[in-house]
Amino acid sequence: MSLLVVGSMAFDALETPFGKTDKIIGGAATYASLSASYFVNPINVVSVVGGDFDQEHIRLMHQRGVNTDGVQVKENEKSFFWSGRYFNDMNSRETLVTELNVLADFDPVVPTSYQSCEYLMLGNLAPQVQRTVIERLQQRPKLIIMDTMNFWMDIALDELKQTIALVDVLSINDEEARQLSGDYSLAKAAKKIMAMGPKFLIIKKGEHGALLFSEEKVFFAPALPLEEVFDPTGAGDTFAGGFAGYLASTNDISFESMKRAVIHGSALASFCVEKFGTERIINLSQEEIKQRVQQFVNLVAFDTVLAQN
Amino acid sequence: MSLLVVGSMAFDALETPFGKTDKIIGGAATYASLSASYFVNPINVVSVVGGDFDQEHIRLMHQRGVNTDGVQVKENEKSFFWSGRYFNDMNSRETLVTELNVLADFDPVVPTSYQSCEYLMLGNLAPQVQRTVIERLQQRPKLIIMDTMNFWMDIALDELKQTIALVDVLSINDEEARQLSGDYSLAKAAKKIMAMGPKFLIIKKGEHGALLFSEEKVFFAPALPLEEVFDPTGAGDTFAGGFAGYLASTNDISFESMKRAVIHGSALASFCVEKFGTERIINLSQEEIKQRVQQFVNLVAFDTVLAQN
Repeated sequence: MSLLVVGSMAFDALETPFGKTDKIIGGAATYASLSASYFVNPINVVSVVGGDFDQEHIRLMHQRGVNTDGVQVKENEKSFFWSGRYFNDMNSRETLVTELNVLADFDPVVPTSYQSCEYLMLGNLAPQVQRTVIERLQQRPKLIIMDTMNFWMDIALDELKQTIALVDVLSINDEEARQLSGDYSLAKAAKKIMAMGPKFLIIKKGEHGALLFSEEKVFFAPALPLEEVFDPTGAGDTFAGGFAGYLASTNDISFESMKRAVIHGSALASFCVEKFGTERIINLSQEEIKQRVQQFVNLVAFDTVLAQN
Repeated sequence: MSLLVVGSMAFDALETPFGKTDKIIGGAATYASLSASYFVNPINVVSVVGGDFDQEHIRLMHQRGVNTDGVQVKENEKSFFWSGRYFNDMNSRETLVTELNVLADFDPVVPTSYQSCEYLMLGNLAPQVQRTVIERLQQRPKLIIMDTMNFWMDIALDELKQTIALVDVLSINDEEARQLSGDYSLAKAAKKIMAMGPKFLIIKKGEHGALLFSEEKVFFAPALPLEEVFDPTGAGDTFAGGFAGYLASTNDISFESMKRAVIHGSALASFCVEKFGTERIINLSQEEIKQRVQQFVNLVAFDTVLAQN
């Protein structure tokens, strides 16, 4: 099945306890489409970049089966740029620079060839832009997955809620779930957020794994206890892309299939954090992914028959 | 197999966002022995109380198959007392009052009838006292499980390390693992701590579950996403008691068995936090426990065959 990924393609400059980078390729659509590309082909991207964007990276995306016909290039403008510094615990960070540039007035264009997409992954962007993409699709996709962040809860809550009401799966982190619902308990927060529209909610907890909620069920996916988290940038986008790509590849949107999609998304995210930027996820082998998924399986496996005695 | 539980029996006065209590029964040995009593009988307790301790609670413990011959009663002294207040997130708390009382010069006595114990659970106490109990056993138990806390890392690190070197399983929380090892990464912290002696390490992560490490393996047990955590007091002791009791009942100390023990300990702890103090774990049915364990099984279960494709 075809997957449409919408989101930023950008430059990041990162500082972690392990080192720092000059401007490297980043952006939600970059991470999400690369991650999804290990499961499904082709992936159609809607985004916008400036004339300064790295053509070599576009070629790498093409090699991974990512179609960039929907990526607008504004030759005389600059790409979105974010610079940030992570603290020792890697769970907190500070933003040093945000330059919206081409994102400031991004008007997403959906090429005709993208119109038949059955799976839509809305990466983190202004909720108004995310909604515009939904409106510009002639047919509602079979499944719409949306990622967002606290920034939009702070400055555009009403618009955010309007977009959330249109999607099937919302993916946010634990602090965002608490902020959006006003409830500290994630179980209660999940109920309130699903009452806003989404039938499914994913709450990402970083090194503590992820929870998948439906109205009646809950699934917990662990995170691997990694020795090093080198750079957490893009982990959430990589997770969401892997989740969406896995579902699109199976074309099965049952809760059981979503569980497996969460595990596969978590596996891709666990690679992402091992190196700076997209370096680790640009060239994975299927064997590596299979082995990593097996590690997740082993991590939580215990003999359930005996456990029930 | 017989289980020996060592630890405090105490009074607590608690304040949570849901209410407050006058002095109620608490203490590591109280929680741990009650929890273990759902798996194995009899349980032998070594502890010390003052003349003010609640005889009715001792009777309740007897009813649950807990033997208190090793509980010294110092008629003219007062029992250990702790008072604390939990904040809204239930993960942080402040100590309001600590009165050591009978614990100040606790010299543990191991009755002759306890000497054959094969499983030893050292609840949180001064590490010197924990070590004394090990020394006063004529035969080394088959398995020694130890719980401790950051307090002893702050004021008695050398003694703590001496005791840790003598045990098989150490159970601490994530912040304590980081403090004890000096490493933020729990995977690295685990290696350093196991190099101090224990062959197995449990890292409790509260609402984020627990990790069980051996030299070569790791297991992750989730926590249930509870709607309400009413009172977290004693959850760690209840976990450790359930873990120890389950192992003693099966007399199987393989890693596979320890995984199941972690799940059973987690299940008991999930009951503990639903009410103040020991109220919820004083009278559970085996059916309730079985159903709760099944919730843990369901929470992480996914179809591993398909996941590996």
